[in-house]
Amino acid sequence: MTSTDLPMSDLTAQGDRAFKDYETLRAQGRSLDLTRGKPALEQLDISRELLTLPGDRWTASDGTDCRNYGGLKGLPELREIFAPVLQVPAERLLAVGNSSLELMHDCLVHALLSEVPGAARRWVDDERIAFLCPVPGYDRHFALCERFGMELISVPMTDEGPDMDVVERLVATDPAVKGIWCVPKYSNPTGVSYSDEVVERLASMPTAAPDFRIFWDNAYAVHHLTDEEVEIRDVLAASEAHGHPDRPLVFGSTSKITFAGAGVGFFGASQSNVDWLISKSSKRSIGPDKLNQLRHALFLQDSEGVRAHMLKQRALLQPKFELVQQILERELGGTGLARWTSPKGGYFITLQLVHGGASEVVRLAGEAGTALTPAGATHPYGVDPDDATIRIAPSYPSIEDLEHAVVSLAVCVRLVGYEQLLAQ
Amino acid sequence: MTSTDLPMSDLTAQGDRAFKDYETLRAQGRSLDLTRGKPALEQLDISRELLTLPGDRWTASDGTDCRNYGGLKGLPELREIFAPVLQVPAERLLAVGNSSLELMHDCLVHALLSEVPGAARRWVDDERIAFLCPVPGYDRHFALCERFGMELISVPMTDEGPDMDVVERLVATDPAVKGIWCVPKYSNPTGVSYSDEVVERLASMPTAAPDFRIFWDNAYAVHHLTDEEVEIRDVLAASEAHGHPDRPLVFGSTSKITFAGAGVGFFGASQSNVDWLISKSSKRSIGPDKLNQLRHALFLQDSEGVRAHMLKQRALLQPKFELVQQILERELGGTGLARWTSPKGGYFITLQLVHGGASEVVRLAGEAGTALTPAGATHPYGVDPDDATIRIAPSYPSIEDLEHAVVSLAVCVRLVGYEQLLAQ
Repeated sequence: MTSTDLPMSDLTAQGDRAFKDYETLRAQGRSLDLTRGKPALEQLDISRELLTLPGDRWTASDGTDCRNYGGLKGLPELREIFAPVLQVPAERLLAVGNSSLELMHDCLVHALLSEVPGAARRWVDDERIAFLCPVPGYDRHFALCERFGMELISVPMTDEGPDMDVVERLVATDPAVKGIWCVPKYSNPTGVSYSDEVVERLASMPTAAPDFRIFWDNAYAVHHLTDEEVEIRDVLAASEAHGHPDRPLVFGSTSKITFAGAGVGFFGASQSNVDWLISKSSKRSIGPDKLNQLRHALFLQDSEGVRAHMLKQRALLQPKFELVQQILERELGGTGLARWTSPKGGYFITLQLVHGGASEVVRLAGEAGTALTPAGATHPYGVDPDDATIRIAPSYPSIEDLEHAVVSLAVCVRLVGYEQLLAQ
Repeated sequence: MTSTDLPMSDLTAQGDRAFKDYETLRAQGRSLDLTRGKPALEQLDISRELLTLPGDRWTASDGTDCRNYGGLKGLPELREIFAPVLQVPAERLLAVGNSSLELMHDCLVHALLSEVPGAARRWVDDERIAFLCPVPGYDRHFALCERFGMELISVPMTDEGPDMDVVERLVATDPAVKGIWCVPKYSNPTGVSYSDEVVERLASMPTAAPDFRIFWDNAYAVHHLTDEEVEIRDVLAASEAHGHPDRPLVFGSTSKITFAGAGVGFFGASQSNVDWLISKSSKRSIGPDKLNQLRHALFLQDSEGVRAHMLKQRALLQPKFELVQQILERELGGTGLARWTSPKGGYFITLQLVHGGASEVVRLAGEAGTALTPAGATHPYGVDPDDATIRIAPSYPSIEDLEHAVVSLAVCVRLVGYEQLLAQ
């Protein structure tokens, strides 16, 4: 039985209980934050060794002095480590800067101001540029496009990735559609990993734009939360096999592996895309911070080292994700008010409100001291048409704070949900 | 008596001697490099402490955890240290990324793709954008403009900075002139420091473009080579006093202070320019590498620490610059074939060939094993109309290699010079 089947008297009782719970919460006056996909302090502590590296070393495996200028591609040893992680051959994987977001930004900039391989002209000379945005998705992807006046077109997410019927129709008919934002594994915020079929269809679909690009943000490539370590299909290999080698641009970083902000960003693509990015960024850069790359290579050692390190991350994150599941089940299970994801990796849980009212839930939770990501942030232009999606970021708070915050959230969901049902 | 006054027989003898010297050099088969303004290994060694910093620290003075996301402005303590160095109030000085070049690039990008304060429209919507380039100047500045299709207009350098009569005329009459490249102290490559009058005129001159910008690359702010530590006028204060607070964009970095590439870049400007850059880069960045900033703050301590550190740099660099002066004087003094600068700081010595032939000198030196910066690199589009300027970068080679390289250069100057005179 769902809450919508409850007799009115029961609904009223549930609403009253929710209101009392809410008043109790508010009286406690605690201040908590569920907004940000930030590593917790314990997660940062497991990379403490980085703080004294590289020690007495400064020479890379190819003899490069990491203390001096040069080396636009990044250190070979670090690229070797992350090549299998990101499914990019090391020779076409660049290690650059301290985040992948800036690499995505710069790819947009360079595409706007000079032709990407296959383009008839600079994007800035097109009257209209549009990007497909699987929703719910990552607000910072959408913000990059908005900042450059690009149009954002929502595409629904399914349990296997973006709804490919919609994607194929849009890219086939509209030459202004130049790209799609993808977080292919443990997607932000749904946790969905793309099925092989979705990757194949993305790699093979005809596009009206000859310079169409998949922005493949593999942010959670090794961020498993269960024993089932999800593998996704290799988008570069698939695109090459289907005759579209230049279609994918692969991004990744160590932000949620080691230190967020003091890590390393990665870019991988076809040789012509790599050559294009290097030729554009060579004017901008005197080389990346190679000492930080050496620091990371010495710390992580190899791909197995990354795996071992991520098991430590999982040991810290998994209990938090499980706690959220337990609380949501306990507080909202069987109410019919909400559904939520049970991700096998990544950084987020998505709560979907059956009757909408997400903005009101976020507002009420905020007033009771629990900060949530603004409702709508997961959608282009910050507008969720169903006002239904709430993103939960369990990583940063302590277990105790997390419990209080999620209980608060659940109380607000009940309060808003029953009020809506009573008003019908 | 200059060489042009020599009787023909003496010219022939000098030419023969130069040819023999050249053959001797070539037979030695050494391979040396005078092209790059790179710190030498000994210079890097004096920052060795950075390799194990920040040690057991990760918290900034304002409580920021430098291991996690955030903080677009950079660490307060590092901005405090460099505020007096770069003549920018700390609250309007940003510490961002690992080089100033990328900050210059990004300012151009953001000006192209969204209005700078005071602009009527985005630069990309202007039919023509031009930058003034004092020559000889820095090729990477020019390359940034070229990359975006901007027009480069040469302005002659005087002993006090750019020829301000020319600058004032061009900026007053041509609204397409949006900027000027300045290395105001120990300029690359002439070593010239701007006089107070030049700074005042730059700060006060009327410009046809309301969004005119001075790209003030104070790359050698503390890079003294003599006891006379040159001070330049504060361009931000001067521009504000003259009612043009938004005109200067100040850049600097630690590249030639600590590690080149593993250092920190700085940007300083008026509050509205700072707000503009932060608002644009906030879409791109998850914050700079704050651990590297902490590392630098712990190592350099304060502005006095920077000064003490730069005295160590000077102790290593000064002998190399003096050696170049001695060799040029010994080999070319009184020949009338060349003039050269005696910089009081910075990284370069400029050799001017009285009769041109710089490309031929560079070619011959290269064949004899000494690589020089391509003739013309100091000028827009790589073309020096007089083919007269050769940039000498004494920092990287050892004293012994430097001696051989500069002697080789001088021999080639004599060879080309006397051949030219004989052909007249």
